[in-house]
Amino acid sequence: MAAISSHPLEEIFHPRSIAVVGASKNEQGTGWVGRLLSFGYKGRIYPVNPNAKKVNGLKAFPNIKNVPEKIDYAILNIPAHLTPQALLDCAAKGVKFVHCFTAGFSETGTSKAKQLEARLAKIAGDRDIRLLGPNCMGIYCPASRMTFDADFPKKTGPVAFVSQSGTEAMRLVFLARDTDVYFSKVISYGNAINLDAPDFLEYLADDKDTKVVACYIEGSRQLARLTAAVKKCLRKKPVIVLKGGLTGNGTGAVAFHTASPVGSKTSWDNFFKQTGAIPANTMGEVADIIQTLLRLNPPKGRRVALVGRGGGIGVIAADICERAGLEIPSFSNATRKRLGQIISEAGVSTRNPVETMAGMNGAADFYLRGLPVVDKDTETDIILVQIAIDIYGGRHTDLTPEVKDAAYALCAVADSLKKPLAVALFTGGHPKATGEALIIRKILTKAGIPVYSGVESASRAIGKVITFYKTGSCN
Amino acid sequence: MAAISSHPLEEIFHPRSIAVVGASKNEQGTGWVGRLLSFGYKGRIYPVNPNAKKVNGLKAFPNIKNVPEKIDYAILNIPAHLTPQALLDCAAKGVKFVHCFTAGFSETGTSKAKQLEARLAKIAGDRDIRLLGPNCMGIYCPASRMTFDADFPKKTGPVAFVSQSGTEAMRLVFLARDTDVYFSKVISYGNAINLDAPDFLEYLADDKDTKVVACYIEGSRQLARLTAAVKKCLRKKPVIVLKGGLTGNGTGAVAFHTASPVGSKTSWDNFFKQTGAIPANTMGEVADIIQTLLRLNPPKGRRVALVGRGGGIGVIAADICERAGLEIPSFSNATRKRLGQIISEAGVSTRNPVETMAGMNGAADFYLRGLPVVDKDTETDIILVQIAIDIYGGRHTDLTPEVKDAAYALCAVADSLKKPLAVALFTGGHPKATGEALIIRKILTKAGIPVYSGVESASRAIGKVITFYKTGSCN
Repeated sequence: MAAISSHPLEEIFHPRSIAVVGASKNEQGTGWVGRLLSFGYKGRIYPVNPNAKKVNGLKAFPNIKNVPEKIDYAILNIPAHLTPQALLDCAAKGVKFVHCFTAGFSETGTSKAKQLEARLAKIAGDRDIRLLGPNCMGIYCPASRMTFDADFPKKTGPVAFVSQSGTEAMRLVFLARDTDVYFSKVISYGNAINLDAPDFLEYLADDKDTKVVACYIEGSRQLARLTAAVKKCLRKKPVIVLKGGLTGNGTGAVAFHTASPVGSKTSWDNFFKQTGAIPANTMGEVADIIQTLLRLNPPKGRRVALVGRGGGIGVIAADICERAGLEIPSFSNATRKRLGQIISEAGVSTRNPVETMAGMNGAADFYLRGLPVVDKDTETDIILVQIAIDIYGGRHTDLTPEVKDAAYALCAVADSLKKPLAVALFTGGHPKATGEALIIRKILTKAGIPVYSGVESASRAIGKVITFYKTGSCN
Repeated sequence: MAAISSHPLEEIFHPRSIAVVGASKNEQGTGWVGRLLSFGYKGRIYPVNPNAKKVNGLKAFPNIKNVPEKIDYAILNIPAHLTPQALLDCAAKGVKFVHCFTAGFSETGTSKAKQLEARLAKIAGDRDIRLLGPNCMGIYCPASRMTFDADFPKKTGPVAFVSQSGTEAMRLVFLARDTDVYFSKVISYGNAINLDAPDFLEYLADDKDTKVVACYIEGSRQLARLTAAVKKCLRKKPVIVLKGGLTGNGTGAVAFHTASPVGSKTSWDNFFKQTGAIPANTMGEVADIIQTLLRLNPPKGRRVALVGRGGGIGVIAADICERAGLEIPSFSNATRKRLGQIISEAGVSTRNPVETMAGMNGAADFYLRGLPVVDKDTETDIILVQIAIDIYGGRHTDLTPEVKDAAYALCAVADSLKKPLAVALFTGGHPKATGEALIIRKILTKAGIPVYSGVESASRAIGKVITFYKTGSCN
C-alpha cells in the first residue's frame, strides 16, 4: 500500500486525472493513452486532439480547456512549437503538473529551440506549473499505475530512481526486475527547466515507500541545492549517483542529450565528497549496488571468504577482489581442519579460496556441509560463492536438475548463516548455461540472496557499499 | 588441416598412441579413456590397470611396460605416491611425453608432497621425459582429437591457449566457442616442474596453425626465459597474458593452486614492459581481446563513432570509452548534414554518439542508410554499434523477427565499410532479451563481426589492442 504524504510533490505520483495533449488518433497500445489504459492507470484519462472524436475508445476533446473535469496532470505530446500555447491552456485549466514529453529544445543546439525552451520555463514559472521535462519520459509509479512503458512491472518495491535519461530509466527497471527488485517511483526528468533532481530528492527523503534512491544525473543548474538535497536524503536512506558526462567525451554527449550544465570534474568530485553518495559508472553497477544495499546484511569488515570451483578461478577472483578493496585472508587453522574433514579430494584447497567439490552435485553438498563451517571462521566477514556454470561438465549436458538442487541447497543454508552471503554467477554465453544461470538466479534472488554476473561486479558493488556503510551518514 | 612441424614438441600434440595409467575400471564416458574415445581420438588408446581386463571395451594392461606397442604419450591418473614408479615405468617403456593429471603435490604445502614432486622432476630430467604437470588437465588439440573434455568443440581455429589452470582453460574454450572462435592447441600445464610456459611459447611462435596466443600464468621458475619466449612469439603473432596472483590476495591463492613462484609485481611490470604482451585481468577480457585481434581490422586511431539508441546510453558509453583511452569526437559538419537527411525524429542526435531511430526496425534502417555515412566521416576511426535489446519495447514482446532483421542489416552493410566495425550487445538478463541477444550474436560473429557484452568490455579490449598495434612488435 502506497503512503500518501502531504508533500507538495506527492500529487504528481497520484494524479486523479491525466490529460494527454496530442493523443494520437490512430494510436494502438503504444501511445500515451494506450499504455496508461493497458497498465491499468487508476484515474481518469482525457485524450486531447482537435481532429479526433475518440482515442483508444475514450472521448477526445479539442483542447484541454474543454475537458469538463479537473485535470491533475497533463502530458504534452505535440510538436515543440505548439508547447507554449498548450502550457498556457494547461494553466488556464488549472493543471498543476505538466509533463512535456516533446523533444527538440535546447538539446538541438539551435538558438530558436533554446528560446522556445526559455519561453516554456517562463510560462511554468509565472503560472505556478510544476513542469517535468521537456524531452523526457515522465513518471512510473506502479502504486497509481502511471507509466511510460506498458511492459513495466506492476509490482511495487523499495527503490526510487531519479533519471535524467528515459532510456536509462527503462534499462534500470528491467535490469532490476530481472533480479526481482522493484520500484516505488521512477522519474525521467530530461532537460529539467523547472522540476529538477533536487525537487525529487527532497521529496524522496521523506517518502516512506522508498528505502533506496538511485540517480542518473547529467548536470544541474542547482548543484548547491542538489548537494543539500542528497545530503538530506542520505540522512534517511542510501543514495547512489551515476553522473553522466564526467569525461570530455561524456560532456560532449550530454550537450545534445539534455543540454544540462555538466559542471567541472572538480565540482562533482566535491559533490561526492560532501554528500557521501555512492558513485556508480554504469547502469549495471547501479543495479548491483541496489541489490547489495537491499540484500547483503552489512558486513563487519572487508575480509571475504571465497567459495567455489577453485584453481585459476579462485586466483583470478582473489586478484579482482583486492583491486576492489576487499581482502581474501587465509581461514583460521580450526576452519581449515574442519573443512579438511569435509573435503577429501586431492588438489582441492581448504584455504581461502575454498573449493567446492567437482560438479554441481559437489557444489550442493559443499553448500550444505561446508558453508556452516566457513560461517564460523574468525578471519573472514563475508561469504562470496562463485558459481561458474560454464565449466561444469561442458555444454552438451542438461544440468538443470543439478543446478536447481545446488540453488535450493544454497537457499536452505542461507538463513542459518550469520555472515552476509553473496553469489557471483558467471555463465559465459552458451544458451544452455545462460538458461541454467537464469534458473539459479531466480531461485536465489527470490530467497533474498544478492546475485551478481561475476566476481568483478560483485566485488565492485560490495566494496563500494562497505565504504558507504563506514563513511555514509544514514546508519 | 593441421601443420606438422619438426619442432621437438610437435609430437606432444599428435601422439600416435596414448596410455592411460590408472584407467578406472568402471569409468563411463567421463574417464580419460571414455573422453578420448567419445571425442574421436585418432590414435590407439591403451588403458593400464592391474585390476581390470577391459576399460570401456578396450583391453587393459597391468603395467604400461606390458603394452605390446610403442607409446607416445601417457596420462597418469593414479594416487600421487604411485607416480614416481609409474614415471620410471614410462621411461622403461620409452615414453617421451607424460601428462601427470594427478594432484596432491607442492600445492598442498606439505614437505612430504614437495619431496614427492622433486622426485618426479628428477626422474623426468634424468630420463629425458617431457613431463606435463603434475596437477593439470593436459592437452586439447582438436586436429588430433586429444582432449580433456569430451564436450569441447571438434572444430579447429587459430587460437592457442597456454594455461596454468585447467578450469580457466575450460572457461576460455567455452567462452570463445560462444562467439564462434576456436583453438589450434590448448595446454593446461599445472605445477610446471618440467614443461613450462616458455616451452610452449617457443613452440607456438613457429606453429603455423596458431595466429593468436593467450596465456594464463600464475608464475614461472624461468621468468627470463619466459620473457624471451614471449618476445620471440610476439615477433610473429600477438600474445595476451593474464597473470594470476598480481595482488597479495591472488599470491596467496596461487600458493595452494599450482604453488608457482609468483614473482614480485615489479618483475611482472617489467615483463609486460619488456615484452609488449597484451595484459588482461579476467578470462572474459582474454576472450574479448582474442575477438578483437581476429575480427577488428586495425583501426587508424582511437576516435570512435558511437552508433545506437541514444540519450543516457550514449552519454554513459562516451564516459566509458574515455576511461578506456578512446575518444568520441563530434562528426564533421558534412557527416552531420548527411545524417540529418536520414534522421528526422525530434530529439534524435546526429552528432556523436548518433542515435538509431526507435525500435529494432529503426536500428535496421539506420544500419543500412546511416552506417555508410558514418563510414565516410573524417573525424572518426572506428564504428562501435550499441545494441541495447533490453530497452526495446519491454520484455513481454517477442522481438525475434526484428532482431534478426537488424542483425542481417548490419551484416549486409559490414562488408562495404572501410572503418573497423564492432558491436556492444547488452541485454540485461531477462530470458527473452537474453535469447534475442544470443541470436544476434550468432549472426554477427558468424559474419566475422566482433561482439562484446557491453561498451565497457568492448572499449577495454579495443583500447588495449590499439595500444598493442601502436607499440607491439608483430606488425
